[in-house]
Amino acid sequence: MTLPPPGLLARARLLAGPEVGDAAAEALERTTGRTVERGGPAGGGPYVYVGAALPDALRGDGLLWFHSVNAGTDALLGAGPWPGGALLTRTVGRMGERIAQYVLGWVLAECQSVPEFAAQHARAEWRRIPSELAAGQTAVVHGTGRIGSAVAGLLRSCGIRTVGVVRTPRPVPPGFDAVAVGDEPVAARWVVAALPLTDATAGYFGAARFAAMGGATFLNVGRGATVDLVALEAALHAGSVGRAVLDVLPDEPAAPGDACWRLPRTVITSHSAGITADDDIVTDFAACLRELTAGRVPALAVDTTRGY
Amino acid sequence: MTLPPPGLLARARLLAGPEVGDAAAEALERTTGRTVERGGPAGGGPYVYVGAALPDALRGDGLLWFHSVNAGTDALLGAGPWPGGALLTRTVGRMGERIAQYVLGWVLAECQSVPEFAAQHARAEWRRIPSELAAGQTAVVHGTGRIGSAVAGLLRSCGIRTVGVVRTPRPVPPGFDAVAVGDEPVAARWVVAALPLTDATAGYFGAARFAAMGGATFLNVGRGATVDLVALEAALHAGSVGRAVLDVLPDEPAAPGDACWRLPRTVITSHSAGITADDDIVTDFAACLRELTAGRVPALAVDTTRGY
Repeated sequence: MTLPPPGLLARARLLAGPEVGDAAAEALERTTGRTVERGGPAGGGPYVYVGAALPDALRGDGLLWFHSVNAGTDALLGAGPWPGGALLTRTVGRMGERIAQYVLGWVLAECQSVPEFAAQHARAEWRRIPSELAAGQTAVVHGTGRIGSAVAGLLRSCGIRTVGVVRTPRPVPPGFDAVAVGDEPVAARWVVAALPLTDATAGYFGAARFAAMGGATFLNVGRGATVDLVALEAALHAGSVGRAVLDVLPDEPAAPGDACWRLPRTVITSHSAGITADDDIVTDFAACLRELTAGRVPALAVDTTRGY
Repeated sequence: MTLPPPGLLARARLLAGPEVGDAAAEALERTTGRTVERGGPAGGGPYVYVGAALPDALRGDGLLWFHSVNAGTDALLGAGPWPGGALLTRTVGRMGERIAQYVLGWVLAECQSVPEFAAQHARAEWRRIPSELAAGQTAVVHGTGRIGSAVAGLLRSCGIRTVGVVRTPRPVPPGFDAVAVGDEPVAARWVVAALPLTDATAGYFGAARFAAMGGATFLNVGRGATVDLVALEAALHAGSVGRAVLDVLPDEPAAPGDACWRLPRTVITSHSAGITADDDIVTDFAACLRELTAGRVPALAVDTTRGY
């Protein structure tokens, strides 16, 4: 990974894309003491760019560093070859915490029959529904990076045993009670997908993995295209997946006629789990800038060849 | 509090009321090595009784110890004068954990718009709803006993600041970040009621307390009669209570025509939060028996004059 030389970085122009709102742009100026320019890179480089997509004009020379306002960088990297030598960092912000609360919220909502009680209430029906105790049960989490670890840590604080799926044997990552290597079978009440989208994870959740889920509830907070929706539908019908909560889909947004809305025992939450706040962008950009100024690789740097 | 003399306890008959299912009665026999008798106390005492209600025939002499299958003993104590000298113990089981997961489940379900997403899904509507981060916000819990502490501890593990309301200054109880004395004002996102029903708590949540809630969501997992429902309705209309989640009501079950179903922004969950499992009864009875045999006051003993 090439870091921008501090000398160049100190005199680089700071550009912000349209995804950075005015409030966030002003906060960037306050935090960095630099002027934020809008629009394309008219005039000379070097440039630092904060945004979601890489303008074509920046694919040439002069881009030192691109800070993504999103955590997932697959769309950005998939839009064309990454300009050689440009550093890519991303915004994670409190996304781990947000997505963890999303997962725990839906896990507990199922245990507490929240949608069922809301429906009973609308019918003025008094009927006891015993709750299910989440504590003592097991969740398997695919993806043991920042997001997966945050999810596991929060589930664990609720008494849920957490198993992280890893490709090769390694120490247990933060938030997890144990790891399972490859497709080692683990009986679980919940299976959480928190994978980035890469060549290795496209269609990762297919017929074989769904068939092995033993009736677990499947929650996807990673990327939609890691899931084969046709295989998921079959597994929901067969019962090997008990319920599904999908924050993400291969094709977003889903149109009203999309088959996804007819998946049984499923709720789709419109990619809402980890919405980035302006504060997150500014905080994470400033942290990267501090690390770069000190000559360190930012913790939020993306390996553009691996894709995460 | 009078403890049954170990000699009497050793030769006491063990009776179980109709609320103790056959499986629980068998488990009681296995755990205690004693025979469980069904039906009333025909024949002589002394008796130990496990059940929900005190049969009239047991109000005379001979009742050494009554073990309630429920955590709340207000109905039991309200049904008539408690027989002098009889010990009362109660089942708490994993109720603290169950009720804590109920509270956290409903707190997060609101933050994650679970009912709203379920409704959107039914309409095949893709619309992002930003989630609310529970972490960093404040919950006030009225009731700092076992249940209140369990609720606070779990909310806290999710990053929620927890303030317990106490009547007189005292050290911060387990699970809490701070205490508030009496009606000291505390700005809170959630107000959780986990109070037993006593003379001091009947109608405790009335117009004045609701008016001071500043739009908080109110959750009642204690006793229904601690709440003045007319005052709650007014507060929901005025906005000083934002939403309400009521597991308990002053009169249960609510009939289909009951006004409670028309409370705005409210869900009633039919007294389901802390349903006692057979295991809980047997485990807690056995723990009390061990403590009594050792001459100690059981941790689950109820002060029948205070009512908890």
